[in-house]
Amino acid sequence: MTAQGFLLLLELVGVFAFALDGALTAMRSTHLDLFGVVALGIVTAVGGGIVRDVLLGELPPATFRVWYYLATATGGALVAFWGHRLLARVSRPIFVFDTVGLSLFAVTGAQLAVDAGADAGQAILLGGLTAVGGGTLRDVLVRKVPSILTGGLYAVPALLGAVVAVVAPLLGVSGGLAAFAGGVLCAAVRTGGALRG
Amino acid sequence: MTAQGFLLLLELVGVFAFALDGALTAMRSTHLDLFGVVALGIVTAVGGGIVRDVLLGELPPATFRVWYYLATATGGALVAFWGHRLLARVSRPIFVFDTVGLSLFAVTGAQLAVDAGADAGQAILLGGLTAVGGGTLRDVLVRKVPSILTGGLYAVPALLGAVVAVVAPLLGVSGGLAAFAGGVLCAAVRTGGALRG
Amino acid sequence: MTAQGFLLLLELVGVFAFALDGALTAMRSTHLDLFGVVALGIVTAVGGGIVRDVLLGELPPATFRVWYYLATATGGALVAFWGHRLLARVSRPIFVFDTVGLSLFAVTGAQLAVDAGADAGQAILLGGLTAVGGGTLRDVLVRKVPSILTGGLYAVPALLGAVVAVVAPLLGVSGGLAAFAGGVLCAAVRTGGALRG
Repeated sequence: MTAQGFLLLLELVGVFAFALDGALTAMRSTHLDLFGVVALGIVTAVGGGIVRDVLLGELPPATFRVWYYLATATGGALVAFWGHRLLARVSRPIFVFDTVGLSLFAVTGAQLAVDAGADAGQAILLGGLTAVGGGTLRDVLVRKVPSILTGGLYAVPALLGAVVAVVAPLLGVSGGLAAFAGGVLCAAVRTGGALRG
Repeated sequence: MTAQGFLLLLELVGVFAFALDGALTAMRSTHLDLFGVVALGIVTAVGGGIVRDVLLGELPPATFRVWYYLATATGGALVAFWGHRLLARVSRPIFVFDTVGLSLFAVTGAQLAVDAGADAGQAILLGGLTAVGGGTLRDVLVRKVPSILTGGLYAVPALLGAVVAVVAPLLGVSGGLAAFAGGVLCAAVRTGGALRG
Repeated sequence: MTAQGFLLLLELVGVFAFALDGALTAMRSTHLDLFGVVALGIVTAVGGGIVRDVLLGELPPATFRVWYYLATATGGALVAFWGHRLLARVSRPIFVFDTVGLSLFAVTGAQLAVDAGADAGQAILLGGLTAVGGGTLRDVLVRKVPSILTGGLYAVPALLGAVVAVVAPLLGVSGGLAAFAGGVLCAAVRTGGALRG
């Protein structure tokens, strides 16, 4: 698998996790039907990537150029809709899927920004923004105070993960390993913070 | 009238309908003065088109390039502010104007995306997004759960209308007729759903 | 100091004022910790400028290209977090900092749009949007009805300030003086309206 193929795979896993997260949030927060659940799953899953592509000037965003982002997002939302009893066996499923999505989007967002020509500082910020973007749209749409404001450890772990994903390759680490390490760091910091808090 | 002139006419009727819709929503939801009513009317009317142009990379958006979008939006909002007693004679006026705007924006958004070089799939998605964008901004600003989440039949009819507006011309139907048919389909599906629901 | 240096200075003062404003709002509205306060301060401070740059097609936005916007925003938010007792001695501090930010962003946003090639009408609209953008994002995130809807005199003074900042240079007035005059007009109209209302 090429480095770019691996990056795409990580990104699609992140899209799937955020779609589960958004769809489960929709089922808990309000009385939403199938269409509402799918809509919130899709917005949560692709929102961050669209914001990243707009800010990079990569237009139209990848979500509109290729079919598999929307297909993955829709699939994730439908899995959550029909399989929510099964997913409820996961301890705190929304937190888990949100953390997976956050970690994967932070590192893939940052590396995609580098590939698109951004310098290191920009790439770190865009990685962080890609990671927190979808969840923030989700919370605004269901009228919750967004996690970036209430959960101290939401943007910070995303930025830490993005730092690793961007800086480690400059020091000679392979992109795939850097993405993996950054993602694990992000997930660990967020989970550690949640367990303490 | 040229095909492009007809498209522009449909778009401006959609802008006017969404401006009425947004302004009437502002008058009902909260204690807003003239400026607030006009502001919400304008955001509802031009929001979807700005999102479409940003995603297409057509910058600055048409709303900022030519004067008649903002003029039409402001006019619609003022008509709603001063004529709301008259408009109240329409049965469920906000629903009616919202459906007109939704239907016209779905088909014009999709055809404008094709004209800007988008392929069929992108154009359908952008048409749907143009249609639901303004109303979603409106609901977020007045703190309602947006229609794309609660009303199953909001995004779906918009996407159906966009499909007709994009696919029919590929089969040899004229653009104007395709837009008309797509708009009627969107309005019919939404209204049918609302009557059943 | 060159004209562009003066414009940048005004813009950074505006960023600092909006960061104070957003951070103080975060401390009053909800139980937010340090990270939440800083996050809302940054969003309020840089949100309007990012929207302006996206609409102008100047991508990535200046906030991501150079370091001093985010540094100023973070600094302002930290000052508000640690110095809020001192800031509370200012009469109505949130209103004061919001008005300073609004006035400076209206005139700098409009003149930056002219520099980026926008015509006069576009520049005035983009100046107004730059000015109201950050505060609107702030209010949406903490779930308040935004000032552009409730406070009649929020968008109007911003547009008036932008008119002066754009039109006066066309009549031979220096850019710096025009920005100063437009900013004073915006602040005066908003303050006058608030004292009356």
